Amino acid sequence: MTSPRKQDTRKKSQAVITQEHPIGTGATGTRQESDSMGTIEVPAEHYWGAQTQRSLIHFSIGDDHMPKAVYHAYGYVKKAAAIVNAEAGKLARDKADVISRVADEVIAGKLDSEFPLYVWQTGSGTQSNMNVNEVISNRAIQLLGGTLGSKSPIHPNDDVNMSQSSNDTFPTAMHIATVLEITNHLIPQVEKLIETMWKKAVAWVDVVKIGRTHLQDATPLTVGQEWSGYVTQLKDAVALVKQSLHGLYQLAAGGTAVGTGLNTLPDFGPEIAAEIARLTKHPFVSSPNKFAAQGSLDAMVNASAALRALAVTLMKIANDIRWLGSGPRAGIHELNLPANEPGSSIMPGKVNPTQEEAMVMVCIQVIGNDTTVAFAGSQGNFELNAMRPIIIENVLHSARILGDACDKLREYGIEGITLDRERISQYVNESLMLVTALSPVIGYDKASAIAHKALDEKKTLREAALESGSINAEEFDRIIVPARMVGNPHKDLGLK
Amino acid sequence: MTSPRKQDTRKKSQAVITQEHPIGTGATGTRQESDSMGTIEVPAEHYWGAQTQRSLIHFSIGDDHMPKAVYHAYGYVKKAAAIVNAEAGKLARDKADVISRVADEVIAGKLDSEFPLYVWQTGSGTQSNMNVNEVISNRAIQLLGGTLGSKSPIHPNDDVNMSQSSNDTFPTAMHIATVLEITNHLIPQVEKLIETMWKKAVAWVDVVKIGRTHLQDATPLTVGQEWSGYVTQLKDAVALVKQSLHGLYQLAAGGTAVGTGLNTLPDFGPEIAAEIARLTKHPFVSSPNKFAAQGSLDAMVNASAALRALAVTLMKIANDIRWLGSGPRAGIHELNLPANEPGSSIMPGKVNPTQEEAMVMVCIQVIGNDTTVAFAGSQGNFELNAMRPIIIENVLHSARILGDACDKLREYGIEGITLDRERISQYVNESLMLVTALSPVIGYDKASAIAHKALDEKKTLREAALESGSINAEEFDRIIVPARMVGNPHKDLGLK
Amino acid sequence: MTSPRKQDTRKKSQAVITQEHPIGTGATGTRQESDSMGTIEVPAEHYWGAQTQRSLIHFSIGDDHMPKAVYHAYGYVKKAAAIVNAEAGKLARDKADVISRVADEVIAGKLDSEFPLYVWQTGSGTQSNMNVNEVISNRAIQLLGGTLGSKSPIHPNDDVNMSQSSNDTFPTAMHIATVLEITNHLIPQVEKLIETMWKKAVAWVDVVKIGRTHLQDATPLTVGQEWSGYVTQLKDAVALVKQSLHGLYQLAAGGTAVGTGLNTLPDFGPEIAAEIARLTKHPFVSSPNKFAAQGSLDAMVNASAALRALAVTLMKIANDIRWLGSGPRAGIHELNLPANEPGSSIMPGKVNPTQEEAMVMVCIQVIGNDTTVAFAGSQGNFELNAMRPIIIENVLHSARILGDACDKLREYGIEGITLDRERISQYVNESLMLVTALSPVIGYDKASAIAHKALDEKKTLREAALESGSINAEEFDRIIVPARMVGNPHKDLGLK
Amino acid sequence: MTSPRKQDTRKKSQAVITQEHPIGTGATGTRQESDSMGTIEVPAEHYWGAQTQRSLIHFSIGDDHMPKAVYHAYGYVKKAAAIVNAEAGKLARDKADVISRVADEVIAGKLDSEFPLYVWQTGSGTQSNMNVNEVISNRAIQLLGGTLGSKSPIHPNDDVNMSQSSNDTFPTAMHIATVLEITNHLIPQVEKLIETMWKKAVAWVDVVKIGRTHLQDATPLTVGQEWSGYVTQLKDAVALVKQSLHGLYQLAAGGTAVGTGLNTLPDFGPEIAAEIARLTKHPFVSSPNKFAAQGSLDAMVNASAALRALAVTLMKIANDIRWLGSGPRAGIHELNLPANEPGSSIMPGKVNPTQEEAMVMVCIQVIGNDTTVAFAGSQGNFELNAMRPIIIENVLHSARILGDACDKLREYGIEGITLDRERISQYVNESLMLVTALSPVIGYDKASAIAHKALDEKKTLREAALESGSINAEEFDRIIVPARMVGNPHKDLGLK
Repeated sequence: MTSPRKQDTRKKSQAVITQEHPIGTGATGTRQESDSMGTIEVPAEHYWGAQTQRSLIHFSIGDDHMPKAVYHAYGYVKKAAAIVNAEAGKLARDKADVISRVADEVIAGKLDSEFPLYVWQTGSGTQSNMNVNEVISNRAIQLLGGTLGSKSPIHPNDDVNMSQSSNDTFPTAMHIATVLEITNHLIPQVEKLIETMWKKAVAWVDVVKIGRTHLQDATPLTVGQEWSGYVTQLKDAVALVKQSLHGLYQLAAGGTAVGTGLNTLPDFGPEIAAEIARLTKHPFVSSPNKFAAQGSLDAMVNASAALRALAVTLMKIANDIRWLGSGPRAGIHELNLPANEPGSSIMPGKVNPTQEEAMVMVCIQVIGNDTTVAFAGSQGNFELNAMRPIIIENVLHSARILGDACDKLREYGIEGITLDRERISQYVNESLMLVTALSPVIGYDKASAIAHKALDEKKTLREAALESGSINAEEFDRIIVPARMVGNPHKDLGLK
Repeated sequence: MTSPRKQDTRKKSQAVITQEHPIGTGATGTRQESDSMGTIEVPAEHYWGAQTQRSLIHFSIGDDHMPKAVYHAYGYVKKAAAIVNAEAGKLARDKADVISRVADEVIAGKLDSEFPLYVWQTGSGTQSNMNVNEVISNRAIQLLGGTLGSKSPIHPNDDVNMSQSSNDTFPTAMHIATVLEITNHLIPQVEKLIETMWKKAVAWVDVVKIGRTHLQDATPLTVGQEWSGYVTQLKDAVALVKQSLHGLYQLAAGGTAVGTGLNTLPDFGPEIAAEIARLTKHPFVSSPNKFAAQGSLDAMVNASAALRALAVTLMKIANDIRWLGSGPRAGIHELNLPANEPGSSIMPGKVNPTQEEAMVMVCIQVIGNDTTVAFAGSQGNFELNAMRPIIIENVLHSARILGDACDKLREYGIEGITLDRERISQYVNESLMLVTALSPVIGYDKASAIAHKALDEKKTLREAALESGSINAEEFDRIIVPARMVGNPHKDLGLK
Repeated sequence: MTSPRKQDTRKKSQAVITQEHPIGTGATGTRQESDSMGTIEVPAEHYWGAQTQRSLIHFSIGDDHMPKAVYHAYGYVKKAAAIVNAEAGKLARDKADVISRVADEVIAGKLDSEFPLYVWQTGSGTQSNMNVNEVISNRAIQLLGGTLGSKSPIHPNDDVNMSQSSNDTFPTAMHIATVLEITNHLIPQVEKLIETMWKKAVAWVDVVKIGRTHLQDATPLTVGQEWSGYVTQLKDAVALVKQSLHGLYQLAAGGTAVGTGLNTLPDFGPEIAAEIARLTKHPFVSSPNKFAAQGSLDAMVNASAALRALAVTLMKIANDIRWLGSGPRAGIHELNLPANEPGSSIMPGKVNPTQEEAMVMVCIQVIGNDTTVAFAGSQGNFELNAMRPIIIENVLHSARILGDACDKLREYGIEGITLDRERISQYVNESLMLVTALSPVIGYDKASAIAHKALDEKKTLREAALESGSINAEEFDRIIVPARMVGNPHKDLGLK
Repeated sequence: MTSPRKQDTRKKSQAVITQEHPIGTGATGTRQESDSMGTIEVPAEHYWGAQTQRSLIHFSIGDDHMPKAVYHAYGYVKKAAAIVNAEAGKLARDKADVISRVADEVIAGKLDSEFPLYVWQTGSGTQSNMNVNEVISNRAIQLLGGTLGSKSPIHPNDDVNMSQSSNDTFPTAMHIATVLEITNHLIPQVEKLIETMWKKAVAWVDVVKIGRTHLQDATPLTVGQEWSGYVTQLKDAVALVKQSLHGLYQLAAGGTAVGTGLNTLPDFGPEIAAEIARLTKHPFVSSPNKFAAQGSLDAMVNASAALRALAVTLMKIANDIRWLGSGPRAGIHELNLPANEPGSSIMPGKVNPTQEEAMVMVCIQVIGNDTTVAFAGSQGNFELNAMRPIIIENVLHSARILGDACDKLREYGIEGITLDRERISQYVNESLMLVTALSPVIGYDKASAIAHKALDEKKTLREAALESGSINAEEFDRIIVPARMVGNPHKDLGLK
């Protein structure tokens, strides 16, 4: 019986890349692979092994495949583990090198076609972890001139999965994949949308329009003020999304099977987190309590809540814009929305707020996905929350469609918006709620009577006010000036 | 050791009501009550016993109390059980009589103040069942001249709960309570709303208005056609609610602890169901499989889904009405909504669609409650779904607020609606989508060009059409007649 | 100006298939296509036209593509419309023939690669309808020897979309697609699962096991009784799914733009529904009120609720099975679950209830999808619920994964289950809750004392009972016979 | 026409409290009150006015009343407004004094019976704001010796509501009420629960138990490690709740009708926020963008998400505990849960995990409430999200029941837990997953074969290992030491 270290040293000579192999097995038909259940035929053109093949057979449910982003993230995990294991002397350096090299191929998406598994599989993600282990093993074996399926000299469990369990690495890969999706894709897209909307707010800072509360006419504000509200909402939502990253930066790796770190080195957790941070350039750290990190998916649930916050905000904004663009003749139509495509197969010339509709649907999907995530997040038991695949699928889905929808909405829905200034002015001029400005002077009760009189008798506010005797024309004209009823729009927008 | 029957015969002489006691213990301070955990002080003014008191102490969570409707329903269960037990000779006839008599007080709500427990208690509802058992026991003892807390001659478990478990009777009470709430309150209110809306539809069957799809102007229809859609939606939703009653008619009673009917008579299930049907005048039957009936709450989940269906429908209708009433000057304002109260504390004369807002909120609450119910419904284990209190609370809540909101919406929101015919006509006349009628004649492409031209050049459709050269004035005036573009409204409404 | 009918007659000679064309344009590079927005380059290898291309550009959001099942269903709509239009003399017979023929290719999935659009598009589904119109138009033009993109002799709007709007045909296609998915795939899979579970129930009808309520030991039942509960739950859920089909059988086609049937024939609705019924062999009928059918998606919401009912039921069952299989040494382990694959990358020899986990996740997803559907279903406005793509996507997704998961659970999760009879017997023998059978004889209070004594003193129930003096050995042995405490399992299963 | 300031000075002499009046009108029957809709009879025993009365009639929907906490919070708003208005010279000092004094009565709950309105009312909360205005007005009038209903000398709108709208003050009161509920009640209760659980973790830091993943036996950990996971989860969740307060500290007050601050002073927003901060001792500030603050309820949605995070965490913990306490004979039963009450009405001596069940139901309710809140939060339009009552109701409900449930769970569910050390040891000794420790020495494949052999042949791990020939007895006994397989529990808990 030899110690693990010596064992690896002994195998060392086998793990030298003797020639370059482009990706691809070059084989057809099937190949025998084995695991603890026995042997099984796998398609010879693929690198995957027995466990992947079993999962493919046992779990072909729907068309939902584990997102590729999870595998790319797993590439970082496997590479970082190999490096840390090698530095600790647990894994022969040249084994670590070839694993790292194949992990780079995984990270780059070059082996994407080797990861065929479904979302609906084991709740720990073990099958996807084993898929990665098997593919890296066989690809490494190929690079080293060995026999695919032999598990030698690179064993999927003993080498590629060394110091790891699915139980700690799958949530690690989930966190990495989510951080990358949110920071590389979602946040930039939302920030570009914010920027575009902010420019509109500034451009329209002085355009007085009628406010609406309860859908009913209210006192005036400027279009710029209204849009500054949208921008503020979005900024607050993005801040929540960024805040949620802090939980995601904490990685479970190092806890192995149940959080105790069995079969790994005492400092494996901090070291692999540091290595992952180095490789990804994100401030990942080791989770301070691995029992919480593996028994729950709370950081993912919180990330989902932050995405939902963004969806709630975007839904309000998208709805506002499509209502403000409604018409053109029988709606509100303060905004001219860009006409990107014919709106109807039967009504010629119809143009619809399609970008806003797509966004509204995306937001509802994200809110629904979040319900799914919270439900799944509550269903952990003991040392494992076995609802990982459903959670990563839904969170990545939400982040992706929100980011894309922001991009499309900005480019095709917002940038081209112009104001229907004629309609905007008309609404301000006809509004009865300007009466509010009279209230501090003549009191709420008299002001109210004037507004009711104007509505009932189909008069202008001025006519009704003067007829009421509560105020004279001079006072009325001094007080009822919409542009002076909007407070300080420039200050609200932080402009000089 | 005597057989149960003899035992009851022996006790028979004790169970005779010797004098009338009005409800009320007439005592103050505390009284000792006991259960298998030992003795405990209870407020002497109340009938409840040790288990109720323990639950009050251990579960004072929030302000959510088990709905009284559950206790009223339990009154039927206890009465029916006593009758069936007596007929089978298991329970002495005079014991059954006094239990029945007190059960009648429970059914009538006369003992409501004796049922103080919280929703958040044991998941089987045992504590509320024991609350009923204890109250009936002590009230019966009082009527029989005995000593409160003595459990003699009417024992809460051995007599009041005879042949029963909470596991089968609590879901039985849930079904009864839900059926009564839905049939006595909800359905009549929705049907009155439907009737009111139908009258509007008929009254406005010929008023041509512009249709709107994607919030954008579309081809015309009549107001009556639009409202016939609302009526149809509501009728379909009510039909689903009625359909959901079929599952609720199936009662678990007779399954006792785990569905096998231990400690009850072989035909207790069918017999108590028949008795409950007789007492309530609803077609209750015994559930054909007690393991499903006690291990799941599927019929309740389905009832909740039906309430949600109604909410989804009502939300669309309430939203439509508040949007159609928006304005009065800067909104759509095809409808004059009744002004029931001042709308704003600051804006004098403001009137808001408050009934519709209340309805929208009620609908969202019902949809949210339904999520709660479905989640809880999925959390059963083995022979019991221990999520009963949360489910009955949410389902009764949904039914109640939907019924009430329909009543208020009808009376204060719908009955007083009138049409702003001037605005309706204006929209029809200005609409560009009348162009659709040209499409079969000149083709979609030319018709589309006309509509775009009219919009871009701010022209009427007629002007743009004639300028286009695709059609002459005579043809245009022959084809573009809004009143002839609405199909057959009378037929759609089934009118002659 | 000619009438529509004459116009078609005039074009008749153009619409003759002069030679067979296999599917495929045979072109590379790009081709110009046009719509009312102008011209645009499309990939020449594809049949789609300008509107599809615009949608591809404007709505590339995520990886969610409109399900192919929607297009297959649309094939039926287009074929049926062509037939009805031809019979009414609105469409030349040979035009109808070529449209029908291409529609058959659509139905058969032969043109699937021509339908690339995303879920997140216009809320009416117009872009997918136009995609179908454009592809059928161009494919028909090809078959007729015309020029792709010329819209002649088969125009996507005037011919393929004749008598139709997206507003009525998209929900029609949604209903058809959902009915086909549910009846062809989901229901058969659930019914096979039911059959398998029923066989288990029958096989184990006499195996006495301990019941569990609140997760705590309760009175006994047989394994067959427990499984009969699962079967009953599933049958009830399938019945709800079947019930939900009735709403789906009602088709909106014939309502065109806003439900009035503008630009179509008075009986187009009933006739196309009859034709679709004939083609699909499902009892489709025309929706009695097109305003409800187009302004709402209530039938889809109800179908989703039925799928959710199935998910709620399956989740309970899957959870029971994985808990009953827990262990093997430190869990309940009444069931030996089939070992299909290695369960852990780090723990050798570990076997996990992966099929049940996959099913639980599928159920949670379906419950979450249903939240999405209900939310979207509530967001209709006026004559259109513009949340169609999100709803069809989620409903088809739910139906599909439920069906597949039932299939896999049955084959790999249920069929191979065997009983750990030793463990089952041990639990029955050790249980304290057999004491319940003493209750009718010695009363609840004394029975309770015995159970507490046994637990506290770590004795068997028999020991504690005899020591209590409440019962003698002979009585005890007569009463406490687990096999006689399970009622009548054969009757419960309807056997004999 | 006089300026507002002069006008108030003029009224000054009227607003002097001439004698003390205890709370109570001392009247019976009805009294006439008026608003802009006209006059209406109100119960003379109450202070409320016409608008409250109208709302009572128009909105008696269900039993859901606006939480008293909202009115208490509104007390702070009215008091702070009066102070700021007085300092600005807008409101006469003695008017401000009497308003402040009555506001103190509101804050203290002394006028709770004067706030009878329903949750389901106008979506802006105007009716509850007017309820407060009317009650303060009439109570102040009473104190000043005036006539109830005269609105003089303290007018509900012109004085009590001065510088305010419901649109800005209702969300202000929502934020205040939520902050107070969370900080005064919820957080302390959770922290006490954490402390109790932490003590358990420390006490049991060295008790080795078997881990469980996928419900199946896994490698060992200590009970203390397991509980440290619970504590960490809870601490993280509390941190999210605290984080969510930051959004709630931002107050809308100062925005008035639509966010522009019409009819208020330029610095009213910051000044009233400062005053509220002073009065409540919480760091409230003025929201930097009033259009976002009034058009959205995003901070409330985020607070709800944080409550949900806590619920997700607590649900996992409560579920773990009830499963670990399952049995006593036929379950896992590592924990002895406290027996607080009889568990069954039919099964004598049964004890159930009722506190955990109550907690699970509370958690599901909170998750469901959160769905309601997010949905409502997405339904804002233009300058107002008119879903305020439903949101404050659900958020306060969630916070309250979570806090109470933590309190009860701690006291009755956690503190009394003891370990079933015998059972815990037995599981460790019998477990097959200790084999994992062999894996680094003999490899995953051989270790796996040993585990399968032990299971299949019903042998101990040691027997199977030695028979396999892969390892000798000495090695086995050296490696397979459960207490050395748990890593460093003391370090994990930060002890020593």
